[in-house]
Amino acid sequence: MNLRIPGPTPCPPQVLEAMARQMVNHRGPEFKALLKDLLARLKAIAQTEGDILIFTCSGTGGMEAALVNTLSPGDRVLSVTNGSFGDRFARIAEAFGGQVQKLSFEWGNPVDPKAVKKALEDDPSIKLVLVTHNETSTAVTNDLEAIGAVVREHEKLLLVDAISSMGAIDLPMDKWFCDVVVTGSQKSWMVPPGLAMVAVGPRGWKAVQEARSARFYWDFQAMKRFQENGETPFTPAISIYFALAVALDAIEKEGLPNVIARHARMGAYTRKAVKDLGLTLFPKESCASNTVTAVNAPDGLEVKPFLRTLRDQHGVVLAGGQGKLDGSIFRIGHLGFVNEADIDGVAKALRAVLGRS
Amino acid sequence: MNLRIPGPTPCPPQVLEAMARQMVNHRGPEFKALLKDLLARLKAIAQTEGDILIFTCSGTGGMEAALVNTLSPGDRVLSVTNGSFGDRFARIAEAFGGQVQKLSFEWGNPVDPKAVKKALEDDPSIKLVLVTHNETSTAVTNDLEAIGAVVREHEKLLLVDAISSMGAIDLPMDKWFCDVVVTGSQKSWMVPPGLAMVAVGPRGWKAVQEARSARFYWDFQAMKRFQENGETPFTPAISIYFALAVALDAIEKEGLPNVIARHARMGAYTRKAVKDLGLTLFPKESCASNTVTAVNAPDGLEVKPFLRTLRDQHGVVLAGGQGKLDGSIFRIGHLGFVNEADIDGVAKALRAVLGRS
Repeated sequence: MNLRIPGPTPCPPQVLEAMARQMVNHRGPEFKALLKDLLARLKAIAQTEGDILIFTCSGTGGMEAALVNTLSPGDRVLSVTNGSFGDRFARIAEAFGGQVQKLSFEWGNPVDPKAVKKALEDDPSIKLVLVTHNETSTAVTNDLEAIGAVVREHEKLLLVDAISSMGAIDLPMDKWFCDVVVTGSQKSWMVPPGLAMVAVGPRGWKAVQEARSARFYWDFQAMKRFQENGETPFTPAISIYFALAVALDAIEKEGLPNVIARHARMGAYTRKAVKDLGLTLFPKESCASNTVTAVNAPDGLEVKPFLRTLRDQHGVVLAGGQGKLDGSIFRIGHLGFVNEADIDGVAKALRAVLGRS
Repeated sequence: MNLRIPGPTPCPPQVLEAMARQMVNHRGPEFKALLKDLLARLKAIAQTEGDILIFTCSGTGGMEAALVNTLSPGDRVLSVTNGSFGDRFARIAEAFGGQVQKLSFEWGNPVDPKAVKKALEDDPSIKLVLVTHNETSTAVTNDLEAIGAVVREHEKLLLVDAISSMGAIDLPMDKWFCDVVVTGSQKSWMVPPGLAMVAVGPRGWKAVQEARSARFYWDFQAMKRFQENGETPFTPAISIYFALAVALDAIEKEGLPNVIARHARMGAYTRKAVKDLGLTLFPKESCASNTVTAVNAPDGLEVKPFLRTLRDQHGVVLAGGQGKLDGSIFRIGHLGFVNEADIDGVAKALRAVLGRS
């Protein structure tokens, strides 16, 4: 199968081989060495002097962890959203008692940093700002650098969902004033799902000390304390740590700037392939993501049977639309373990199924 | 390495092979079929007509999930504990606003169901009862059948930590009046860590509807709704689901009663091996666990260097004591993928390092 959804991504053979390693004691010397090594390498990719915390959970677990460690019930939260993952971040904040003001942008459009600035000026009581770096549902990358500058100017705390961006789209976390950043193993990292990596800077830690949300499994301070001793508070998904170390070998061998450049190339290559087929992009091209491409379903195309035919007859697995985009778009993932040949395969299958010449 | 800690346990080769399978779409037909199959098979082992919910997390995540779905802040909770995992269950309940009354028993002794009865009679305002079926820290199995009968008699909700028991020690959940039961993939299931399986009966579901704790990632109702459609709300640790299906093949081939009998045999075999070396058991033998054995460190033995020597010179990995037992006991895991030869290897290494004839 040519698995081209925006995560889980296919894993390289050596990563899958690492998944098959026999268990070790999670409180023994092999795991201690592995964890120490992983944290240093992830810090380099997050481009941070802060801490990396690894939780056994999905990316959404990482978002919840970011919130319950920095939010107190009743805190004013500005949720900046232009898609269903941005909306999810808001829903989590609401679930934990945040007083959420949503600043929504039309799906397919980027977040406007000037509107963020205005919202922060209009309501000085806002404490936390939530933003999605790469909105997977609409295939839009937001201008996190500009948003980060605005949020820092107003001295708010910035929590970033970078689940489908970090490791593929540049994200110099400290330089861009991001305080807590979340990513997930099944995206750019070329590793199976099961780990969320959360980066926490100094202002993030200050918020953690002050936040009064109930927490136990997600407790950042316990995780940091254990990690400093080469352990985790609770039994970690050891196999995925093994796999991540091997995937990082490949990322480091290619070099982060080259990985980022490859994703930029893959984004452009995919968009061109789609347009060459006479299809149109869902988002504005100026903000189109380099890890996922959203394509408008041509008039009269029923998306579900179309995706089924692609899979069953051509071995190409794409994703449909989420939420209100269900039935009107389909999405092609091109993050992690991907090259031009994979996209050529997608284009060939699309051409056949859509009957394009 | 002969990994003989009470989880993660070694995994059979075919389980490790399944861990190396390439990713699939977690919202596609392969995963739907896999999930449906797993849920039916897990129900049979939990011996329940209730629902099985699978979360990507450690066992402690499952305990937190059980609590935040059934507890409202301010609820009176009776925490029945005879070890550090019982104490952890109480700490989680406290973290989420439970008014916890602890009913503690001396470590190494079992829970006394009559004392539970008295505590429930003394305080009719108690709503939830927390109990550990198999207390891994002291290697004691509690009489869950008797405790369950008492709790049901008083019409309280019973949450059970069965992380290191279910699948190895008999636990007919419905018959024993357990309302929510938690287990973890890295224990009797012979699978790497990363999944918690939570079984929820009808009284559990009623409590879920009433409980007002904040929850999102752990939300039982969302998980049930998605699982009924063959999906999970958030990206699951797919590899571990693959592995669990293969491990269940082995468990079903052996047959649950035979698996349980093998663990009883392994427990007795391990205790005899330890006593034959002139060592003494930490818990009372009448309540000794069939999945883990706790051994008193002989006078003058420094446990940490002793465990290091066992590992480095004999390839045998045992666990030390937790909390207040750190330095005074060591523990031998014998759950999941284990037979007499594994324990013979442990005994041989112990004999060599302790200089016993």
